[in-house]
Amino acid sequence: MCQLLGMNANVPTDVMFSFAGLARRADEHKDGFGIAFFEDRGLRTFVDPRSARESPVAELVRRYPIKSDNVIAHIRKATQGRVALENTHPFVRELWGRYWVFAHNGDLKDFRPRLHAAFRPVGDTDSERAFCWLMQEMAKAHAAVPDVAELTHTLRELLPQPAAHGSFNLLLSNGQALWAHCSTRLHFVERAHPFGRATLSDEDVSVDFAALTTPEDRIAVVATEPMTCDEAWQAIAPGGLRVFAGGRAVV
Amino acid sequence: MCQLLGMNANVPTDVMFSFAGLARRADEHKDGFGIAFFEDRGLRTFVDPRSARESPVAELVRRYPIKSDNVIAHIRKATQGRVALENTHPFVRELWGRYWVFAHNGDLKDFRPRLHAAFRPVGDTDSERAFCWLMQEMAKAHAAVPDVAELTHTLRELLPQPAAHGSFNLLLSNGQALWAHCSTRLHFVERAHPFGRATLSDEDVSVDFAALTTPEDRIAVVATEPMTCDEAWQAIAPGGLRVFAGGRAVV
Repeated sequence: MCQLLGMNANVPTDVMFSFAGLARRADEHKDGFGIAFFEDRGLRTFVDPRSARESPVAELVRRYPIKSDNVIAHIRKATQGRVALENTHPFVRELWGRYWVFAHNGDLKDFRPRLHAAFRPVGDTDSERAFCWLMQEMAKAHAAVPDVAELTHTLRELLPQPAAHGSFNLLLSNGQALWAHCSTRLHFVERAHPFGRATLSDEDVSVDFAALTTPEDRIAVVATEPMTCDEAWQAIAPGGLRVFAGGRAVV
Repeated sequence: MCQLLGMNANVPTDVMFSFAGLARRADEHKDGFGIAFFEDRGLRTFVDPRSARESPVAELVRRYPIKSDNVIAHIRKATQGRVALENTHPFVRELWGRYWVFAHNGDLKDFRPRLHAAFRPVGDTDSERAFCWLMQEMAKAHAAVPDVAELTHTLRELLPQPAAHGSFNLLLSNGQALWAHCSTRLHFVERAHPFGRATLSDEDVSVDFAALTTPEDRIAVVATEPMTCDEAWQAIAPGGLRVFAGGRAVV
């Protein structure tokens, strides 16, 4: 299974701590990694078909404190599609003058919807195909960028279709919010004042968020498995869609 | 004026030598840089709104020998659009299941075509607007990825329209070929067996390509200004469109 990591914050925040934890999990997920950082409407994406353990690009991401309000990262264990750059998550498309970033953990069997519009897969993964279909259906449902609540409503209608074909844990962001859909395993934690200390589950590394934040900061982190061993991670229920905006879970 | 750099090769080749020369030119072009590498259909893009002289991302690109068959790089001096990530070239869109990469050097006045299709600018540059229009018109002209000669024909029809609004030096690639359109200044060089030594114009650095290549290798490099002082760079005539495939200029 691949591993997902997402972050949504009300002020641009770096994810070096969480990414260090994710990269530790790359032992069994050696088929590439990718991470996308929104900075307002702008986006930068780093992908490498090499493992996050040995990739110079991952090393850059671990060391360069890129501050972002929405982040999606993925480490890959290939199920469908060969190990190649075009099959490396996250995938990006533009719609309504906004970039959309998507990463998927799971496996969809025989989900081959008709793609008749402007979004076509470049690689050969089930994940990118599902993303293109999602973009196509979103484009039909709205004429311009809908607000977060409206788009959430649309996603709740659309997601069960690919999800019926297998496991479809996913993260999606347009830079305004982070959507997290759970099929089998996905967890999140919300961090807010008073901030405390957190310790990575996979490595003896801890950080005191109180020293790095202001009382107004809010951060939500989503991951396949809880990243830290001393915070109150919540499981998203199978079939559940959670939305994060302004650094917190919204209804 | 911004600076463009493009590379097309018949076997995946790194551009560390040329990028070092480009980064030297970043003194006057401090408003960001970007570079996109095709690896077959796959693409990785590194962008940073910081100068290529000080960006850790540029440092990575200088040190990590990413081998690619088509590269487009850009260092920016802002004319339209503020210094921001979403205004940093190159721009990327997907069409017909292929990524398309575009970078522009120049300034278009009052080019505001109607964008009624699937491509909208995310930032506020004249460049991204012209790219979206180009993608829209290409999508109308062909039902699927055309071959290089056909697309070149389409581009020859389309490019004069934005070019009439100012200067429109540009590089475009879909991973199969590199198109270079000159409005004011653009040069290229072809490297083939027997390979010789080349010395950067901007820095006392030289490289012996004979030691790094095989007799079958072919590489074409396109740049705003010749990058080396001891090779036979050719100017592309104003209004001219050149196409590079398999590491050489094709008719």
